[in-house]
Order: sequence, then structure tokens, then C-alpha cells
Amino acid sequence: MQSFGLIHFFQTHIAPMEIVSDLGQMQDICMRARIDNQKIALVPTMGFFHEGHLSLMRWARLNADQVVVSVFVNPAQFGPGEDLDRYPRDLERDSSMARSLSIDFLFVPYAADLYPEGFDTWVETQKLSKFLCGQERPAHFRGVTTIVCKLFNLTMPRMAVFGRKDRQQLLIIKKMVRDLHMPVDIVGLPTIREHDGLAMSSRNAYLSPRQRKEAANVYKGLAMIRQEVLSGRTDRLELESLLGNYYRQNIPGAVIDYIQLVNAETLENASRADNNTFMAVALKLGRTRLIDNIELGQSTEDA
Amino acid sequence: MQSFGLIHFFQTHIAPMEIVSDLGQMQDICMRARIDNQKIALVPTMGFFHEGHLSLMRWARLNADQVVVSVFVNPAQFGPGEDLDRYPRDLERDSSMARSLSIDFLFVPYAADLYPEGFDTWVETQKLSKFLCGQERPAHFRGVTTIVCKLFNLTMPRMAVFGRKDRQQLLIIKKMVRDLHMPVDIVGLPTIREHDGLAMSSRNAYLSPRQRKEAANVYKGLAMIRQEVLSGRTDRLELESLLGNYYRQNIPGAVIDYIQLVNAETLENASRADNNTFMAVALKLGRTRLIDNIELGQSTEDA
Repeated sequence: MQSFGLIHFFQTHIAPMEIVSDLGQMQDICMRARIDNQKIALVPTMGFFHEGHLSLMRWARLNADQVVVSVFVNPAQFGPGEDLDRYPRDLERDSSMARSLSIDFLFVPYAADLYPEGFDTWVETQKLSKFLCGQERPAHFRGVTTIVCKLFNLTMPRMAVFGRKDRQQLLIIKKMVRDLHMPVDIVGLPTIREHDGLAMSSRNAYLSPRQRKEAANVYKGLAMIRQEVLSGRTDRLELESLLGNYYRQNIPGAVIDYIQLVNAETLENASRADNNTFMAVALKLGRTRLIDNIELGQSTEDA
Repeated sequence: MQSFGLIHFFQTHIAPMEIVSDLGQMQDICMRARIDNQKIALVPTMGFFHEGHLSLMRWARLNADQVVVSVFVNPAQFGPGEDLDRYPRDLERDSSMARSLSIDFLFVPYAADLYPEGFDTWVETQKLSKFLCGQERPAHFRGVTTIVCKLFNLTMPRMAVFGRKDRQQLLIIKKMVRDLHMPVDIVGLPTIREHDGLAMSSRNAYLSPRQRKEAANVYKGLAMIRQEVLSGRTDRLELESLLGNYYRQNIPGAVIDYIQLVNAETLENASRADNNTFMAVALKLGRTRLIDNIELGQSTEDA
């Protein structure tokens, strides 16, 4: 699509999705769209789409003029020994799924362009990056904020859409945007789950059938905790230990990275569960690291 | 100025300069200008204008539709014990000087808005920030890149103008912009000097009459070094020691922070002077820290 303007509506629904890899080309397209006062929504992903990604894309399609979906497995957010090399990829399937949702641009940049030799500039939201997943993955969120900042500069979105499964990531990105005054609205959408409750994740593809079955208990435990809170049990240590026991019994093969009741904004430990807290967990089933979280209290919406 | 469009030319030359402190207001104005396809130039300063600042503003006025000059003494780039508290300020004089150059917006944000409680996100260009001034001022350039990133997001310029006196700063900002794909052209303009050669700097106001007289030798030494290079003397250690001796003789009261012949892109020590090197110095005269630099080789332009 080379032009924007009054005929935009027809174009977006007639023009085929364009796959763009060149950074300058992507930036030019978005710069022109922005000058044309079009609302760009960015959906940053690492590809291998599931219903979670698709729900973000559908929201973006409904709420923006131009939808850019980026697919980039960002090496900077993987630590040594993590799953960068085996992270699942299927660009052909991804692009046909995006096309079916009338996405305008699939942005598939090359790592060598985003991190050329001598790359040396990092964006870091320091305190929030140290809690929860930051403890085991010390450079992870610095990699996330840096790539998101880069993608924002390349695609100049008015809004960017993220899933709430990666709730710490969502909080950190919101904080970065506020601290640096980025002219972007950050939209967090509910976690999409399999029928048995397992949060959708590209990494679920790693699970053996037996692990996959056990993995459903990650969410079942969280839902049980919410019930406990609703019936009046709110002490952090009690809830954390209850959940730990549940996992040890129901996912015996798992290694628990953390189980933490935290303040929904600061990510610091909350002494009691209330509307402004959530329970976050990370555990390893074999080589697969799973994370999930649940809001607590009465006004929760992310079931 | 509330509207942009065809009558822009008349507006910019009739409308009085507007002084804006509110971050949201500044961002809205620039967002509208950008949508209106107007070229915004940003001149980031710490105020207390001298001819160096004015030369940047004149360039911006000639090359952009809308000129935003920011005045902000950025606490994040001062270290403990540095001159943040006594840094010279005179907003009234600054605004009348900017007005006389037909600047559109003087952006004077508050520190409490730019660094509210809990501010926690930093932008850092790591390697380049460790050389030269970074050795004595370890957090300085992180403060610079962070505030410049913030100002870029607030004013959305197509170009930003900096002086070459702060050559390391200029290089670091160019590197940040490239690494993060910021859609801004960075323009570096020649150092403006007093009649006796002293590089203009707001900090020159700190100098006693006697120090002020000696300070002229900072540049005289650099000019002497360039002559030596042009006549065939190019060995780094020889040139550095020559300049050190010159300063010890001609600015006996100075404490030399560094004298370094460096590669003009990497800032690493160069073994020999050539077109891609410059000589950089920093020294303290009493409590006043002065920096200067000179390009070496035949094709130099920054006299």
C-alpha cells in the first residue's frame, strides 16, 4: 500500500497484507500514515501465533486505521542457556493467520538490522525489572524494553497491544512509556486460555502430552487461590504456601521458580490479597518455563 | 499558536513566541504540527544562552517550519558535588534572546514533571559513555541520553541541533538515535568561540578575570597541536605530552582531567593523528570544568 487518504477504508479492506522486513521502509510507511493522521496500532509478537495473539490483532483491527503486527524473536531478551535457538517459528502459518484478520502490515525485521555490530544503546526500567521473572532472567526485561522502544520508533503507533499473561512485561512497558513520555497508549488484554485453563503460549508447544496435561493445574491452582481470597483468606504467606502445596501435589514434575502475591503496580510483595494485588507464578516443567497470574479481589476481570 | 496549515508562514513570523512548561501541552502542539507535515527542529539547551546557542537557533530557524528551544538544567546529568545548584540561569534574558530570533516555542519543563517520584527508566549508550568525560562523570551521559530521548518524545522533532564543543555528547546522541531508530536527524554545528579562542560555554561565567584570561590557552594549545599535525607530527603520545606541557606552562592553575587523541567515531585512543581523529581535553580551573576539542588532519572544518 503506497498511499493513504480518503480511500483508506477501501484500501485496508481490499489491499493485501504487506510483509515488510526493511526497517527504513517500515518507518517510511508509518511516517506517511502518521502524517495522514491515521491511527496505527502495533501488536508486537515473537510469532508462532495462537488465539492469544489473534485476540490482540482483532482488538487492534477494530480500534485502529492501520494495524502493524511485528514478528521478531528478540535475542536480547533471552539469557544464556535459554530457548532462543529452539523457540518455535512458522512464518508461513503466521502470515496466513494475520492475513485472515485483515492485518495491514506484517513487520518481520532481521536481527542483523536491529542489532548490528556495535549496537550499544539500552532502555531499562530498573526496579520493576528486578522482581518476579527478573530474578532468574536478569537481562530479560532490558531486552524487552529496548526492542519495544525500537519498534515504537520504527512504527510510530498511537497504541500498542499486549497480553496480560506477561503481566510484569505489560507493567514495565507502561512504566517505560510514562517515564519517557512515549506518545503511545498501552493496551493490555485478557489472557486467552485453553479449555482446561492453561494460558496460551507459544512455549506450550514444547510440552510432552503428559506435561501438557499437568500444566492445566498451573491455572487451576491460581483459580483455587482466588476462591480462597473471595472466601476471606487473604494472608500472603498462607496463600503462597497453599499454592505451593497444590503444585507439589498436582504438578509433581515441576520446579517452582516463584509463587508471589504482589502489588499490582509496584510488584513488591503485598502483605494481604486485595483488589490491587495479583498472584504470579513461574515454574519449569522439564525444559519448559511456564508463567501465569491471576487478579485477586472482588473486581477482578481476568478470569 | 493553535492552528497550523497554509497560513503557517505568516503565523510563524507574526505569532509571538510561546513559552510552554506543561509536558502534555508541548506534546499536543508538536503532534498537531507533525500531522500537519511541518518540520519541527528541536534545540535542546540548559539555558543561559550565548552565541553558541544562538547559532544553533539560527540554523534551526532557517531549516525548519517550527523551532522548539528547550531550556532545562537536567539534574540527571550532574553528579554528586557537581555544579547543579549554581549552574547559571536567566530565563528572562533567554526568552528575550529566543524571541528576537523568531523561535516558535520556548519549552521550559519542570524537573518534578520530567522526573516524578518513582521515575525509573534510563536510556544508555554504554561504551561511548565510558570514555573521556565519562571517566570522571560516570552517570553523566546516561542522564544526557535519557533526557534527550524524553525531549524527542515530547517534541517529535525531525531534526535536533547540537554544538560540537560537546563532541562526545554529540557522538553519543547520534549513536543512540541510530541504535534506537529514532526518526530524527542529528545536526552538529561548529563551536562558537570568543575572540581569544575560548569555546563559548555557560560555565565560563564562573571564571574569575584571571582564570578567564588563562582559559584562552585551552584552545590556543589545541590550535598549536593542529599545526604540529599539519606539519607532520602525528604520534599520539608525543602530541598529548606536548599539549600537557603547554597547559602546565600556560595555565599553571589548571588541573588536567584528560588530554586524549581519539578516534572520531569510537572515541578509543588513536595511535596517530589523521582526518578521523580529534584531540579532546578537559581541565579544571578552580571549580570550573572546561572542555574543548579540535579536529585534526587536512579536511578539518571546525577551526
